[in-house]
Amino acid sequence: MGNPEYRLYGHFESGNVYKAALLLALAGKAYEFRHVDIFAGATKADDFTALNPFQEIPVLVHGSSTITQSDVILRYLADDIGRFGGKDAGERRRIQEWMAWTSNKFTNGIASARFGTRFAGFDPAVITFFQKRAEAAFDLVERHLADREWLVGDSPTIADFSAAGYIFLADEAGLDTSPWRRMHAWIERLSLLPGWHHPDKMPRKDAIVAPTAVFNAPDDDDV
Amino acid sequence: MGNPEYRLYGHFESGNVYKAALLLALAGKAYEFRHVDIFAGATKADDFTALNPFQEIPVLVHGSSTITQSDVILRYLADDIGRFGGKDAGERRRIQEWMAWTSNKFTNGIASARFGTRFAGFDPAVITFFQKRAEAAFDLVERHLADREWLVGDSPTIADFSAAGYIFLADEAGLDTSPWRRMHAWIERLSLLPGWHHPDKMPRKDAIVAPTAVFNAPDDDDV
Repeated sequence: MGNPEYRLYGHFESGNVYKAALLLALAGKAYEFRHVDIFAGATKADDFTALNPFQEIPVLVHGSSTITQSDVILRYLADDIGRFGGKDAGERRRIQEWMAWTSNKFTNGIASARFGTRFAGFDPAVITFFQKRAEAAFDLVERHLADREWLVGDSPTIADFSAAGYIFLADEAGLDTSPWRRMHAWIERLSLLPGWHHPDKMPRKDAIVAPTAVFNAPDDDDV
Repeated sequence: MGNPEYRLYGHFESGNVYKAALLLALAGKAYEFRHVDIFAGATKADDFTALNPFQEIPVLVHGSSTITQSDVILRYLADDIGRFGGKDAGERRRIQEWMAWTSNKFTNGIASARFGTRFAGFDPAVITFFQKRAEAAFDLVERHLADREWLVGDSPTIADFSAAGYIFLADEAGLDTSPWRRMHAWIERLSLLPGWHHPDKMPRKDAIVAPTAVFNAPDDDDV
């Protein structure tokens, strides 16, 4: 195998890095993973700040392009790979709406409650605030999934990957997601896609990551 | 004047609605404003939920398209009007990155501290958390503006409008932004663009909003 065309900077504890890794895994794309020691302040170092002025992971490098912010990376990869990005302009816009809402209410709720619980020792009132924000978002997703299998359209898209990323880490945020039955079924569908892996399988050091399987949608004719 | 082609659903207290209104004002576009009484639960009503399942403002209606989430609305309007959206694919991606980061750290910090202070009576620890989040974001923007006038490229874009929206309401979030000097100069530049108006000039009921002036960039040749 040659050098993979994508390079992903991240850390195995980051659900936002996982979102990009998940897309690459489901698309059957190999990538180079660069471990960034976020707990040792590596994102604040000069070389990393030059790469990403936001001082955050994930960062994707592809050819001469450097892309930051998980939802922008997901959109870039979907467009580059030609999958999971929506069938037309209308679906693309719905996906952008879902990613914007999800990052604010759903991911931010789980991720901040988890970060405050596991890593940063936030005031309990702050953790409770974010848990309630996440639970309100779960209610909305549960209603949305009443008559559909995926958040947008009739097949998995980056809207699902973006929203689902932190669900696998919800227990670490002190959240019990079992009452949301349709949401659980949606996550189950996602985790059955060929190539899927749990965030606990993220590499823990620099690595070349090879895909284990390729998900091909039923309507793909390039199988 | 005929019926404006854009219809914006919002409320005068919403900084996210203001972002879309600001773009329309700077582009010299008239629009129909529909007042949504968010404090009376209007976003939870069936008719509004049918319009926007996220039960939030702003919502933009344009022809047969309904667009939600402020940053998606800004992108849609910039593309439709052909201004403020970035000069090339690289600038467009930088703008999307800035809007993603800003919504998470900058806007969310100010907006949540303000909402918790003025409207919802959040626990003081939660308000402090969001104030500190906003202040950390101000530090990053301050560094970024060391050698540039606008967040992306060399002219104002939707990245600036998205980030600046809540700055005008920061005092209501208990934030004193005066120590961030370059950020202040950037906001001052923005507020001097022809057509600009403060959020306190947002309509307080259904209205047809006519632009007061049109901002034309120095390099525009269609003046």
